[in-house]
Amino acid sequence: MRALVIGAAGFVGNYLVKHLLEQGDEVYAGTLSESVELLPDTTFKVDITDALSTGELIQRSKPQVIYHLAGISFVPEAESDFERTLRVNVAGTANVLRQAHLLSKEISVLFISSAEVYGQIKPAELPIKEDTPLRPANNYSLSKRMAELVVERYARQGALRCTIARPFNHIGPGQDSRFVASNFAYQLARIAHGRAPAVLQVGNLEARRDFSDVRDIVRAYRLLAHSQGGVFNLGAGVPRSIQALLDGLIAVSELKVEVQQDPARMRGPEVPELYTSYERAKSVVGWQPLIPFEQSLADIYQYWYERVGLELAA
Amino acid sequence: MRALVIGAAGFVGNYLVKHLLEQGDEVYAGTLSESVELLPDTTFKVDITDALSTGELIQRSKPQVIYHLAGISFVPEAESDFERTLRVNVAGTANVLRQAHLLSKEISVLFISSAEVYGQIKPAELPIKEDTPLRPANNYSLSKRMAELVVERYARQGALRCTIARPFNHIGPGQDSRFVASNFAYQLARIAHGRAPAVLQVGNLEARRDFSDVRDIVRAYRLLAHSQGGVFNLGAGVPRSIQALLDGLIAVSELKVEVQQDPARMRGPEVPELYTSYERAKSVVGWQPLIPFEQSLADIYQYWYERVGLELAA
Repeated sequence: MRALVIGAAGFVGNYLVKHLLEQGDEVYAGTLSESVELLPDTTFKVDITDALSTGELIQRSKPQVIYHLAGISFVPEAESDFERTLRVNVAGTANVLRQAHLLSKEISVLFISSAEVYGQIKPAELPIKEDTPLRPANNYSLSKRMAELVVERYARQGALRCTIARPFNHIGPGQDSRFVASNFAYQLARIAHGRAPAVLQVGNLEARRDFSDVRDIVRAYRLLAHSQGGVFNLGAGVPRSIQALLDGLIAVSELKVEVQQDPARMRGPEVPELYTSYERAKSVVGWQPLIPFEQSLADIYQYWYERVGLELAA
Repeated sequence: MRALVIGAAGFVGNYLVKHLLEQGDEVYAGTLSESVELLPDTTFKVDITDALSTGELIQRSKPQVIYHLAGISFVPEAESDFERTLRVNVAGTANVLRQAHLLSKEISVLFISSAEVYGQIKPAELPIKEDTPLRPANNYSLSKRMAELVVERYARQGALRCTIARPFNHIGPGQDSRFVASNFAYQLARIAHGRAPAVLQVGNLEARRDFSDVRDIVRAYRLLAHSQGGVFNLGAGVPRSIQALLDGLIAVSELKVEVQQDPARMRGPEVPELYTSYERAKSVVGWQPLIPFEQSLADIYQYWYERVGLELAA
């Protein structure tokens, strides 16, 4: 299967490329700036806000399946510039779909949306299913819902085979340290290497979220891209507090640390608990998460422990 | 009541300003370029894609009610540049809401959306109500639905009092001649003045739409802006074919003309019939359309007849 991964240089993109290669796909990658180590010969630069550049990538790679992961994915970054977020996440997605459609209506496009589109969930609505009401409440989630509207338009008109994935929080080795699990693990690794005092800075610890492993998530992506289309929630199906994530990482690190709440890290009012049902993905494509939470945390800590070690050696 | 009309120089904006003044409101206007004749002292330039400019307008006029009409409203114009449409219709609306919210949470904002957000309606779904599924199918309707998402976010958070109007096709003297009723009337007026052969160029005549008079619509806007919020469809509640509109205008003109279908005017596949129920607006704010269809057509023809006459005299 000829697959094109747009946004391949990111955290998830890298795992997806690796998984597709393992499954025997012929993989092409589009990235804005960085290169993809695993694809030295089939990585091309692309700026999805530019229709011409997007068209060239798609014409060149002639994919049967497109995985569209490109976009602004960090909530505060989206919050600070809505116009740019619209340009990248919404107009960019429209460019991808239009250029794919111009090549062939037979292309299957998997659009990576986000569980954030559900927004302000009420406790009675848990677990979140695909038909739970959508109440996007920040610029990032608005932009993702808006991009979904564009995808739905193409899907309805039969202009492409489209699938929408709504992943909940996913974690794993290599994730940017702006995200909570990586951030805690990075701080712990620095403490372990004696590069920081044994004090961990944290924000809110009460929020309960649905954490799954990125390696489970990319496996779902390939299954969904070969499905007949639709919308699919992806997650572990279990709520875990940030406190539990913190405790798990501290346990893995075997360190004794003091935990300090940093006002700068406290987010505004948040939904206290979010978790999904992955029943639809299970029944339609047979997917379920396989990697235990503790395994994810151990791998994340290990990643940062090695990386901080390398930095010190350099 | 201190009212601010953003996008006041347009077809609907002019009628709205006139109506608000008649009702005794203190009216301020924001316009991108043109001035508003009726408000020589309280018209300010504004570019809603610029947060600073939008903020200045709102701080200066300190409105209790904002009527947000500004945006790209011609479907083909939106189709040709999605990125610009997002910038104006979506990011622009976000700027208006944010700047209003910064001034006061007590401001009532009426966002003028469009019946186009319903998109691909099935015959069994007629008449269209406010909870009819939304299937926006072009860049214009997508942008309007996206802007609604932004408005809904502010409304849910109690950050402003927000109302959304979804007007169906509205017509009246002064509408741009790119729109069908004005276009036919303009052609007829030229024929009547002997400036064109007695041949009328038309596109599809079969589509049935819900045509109401702009003067009824702006009356609804004021009523809705003083309501408790929500989404409201506005229309005549009756489907009329483009053919009926054409026949009505020809009758008013008392001309004998040949009707020619122009391939360049034929739109792609369209929904054959669209009309609304205005029950909600009637029951919540007591609104109903009052101006008969024939009156609208007579006034439109009269407008173009005089205007073509003036152009010839000039």
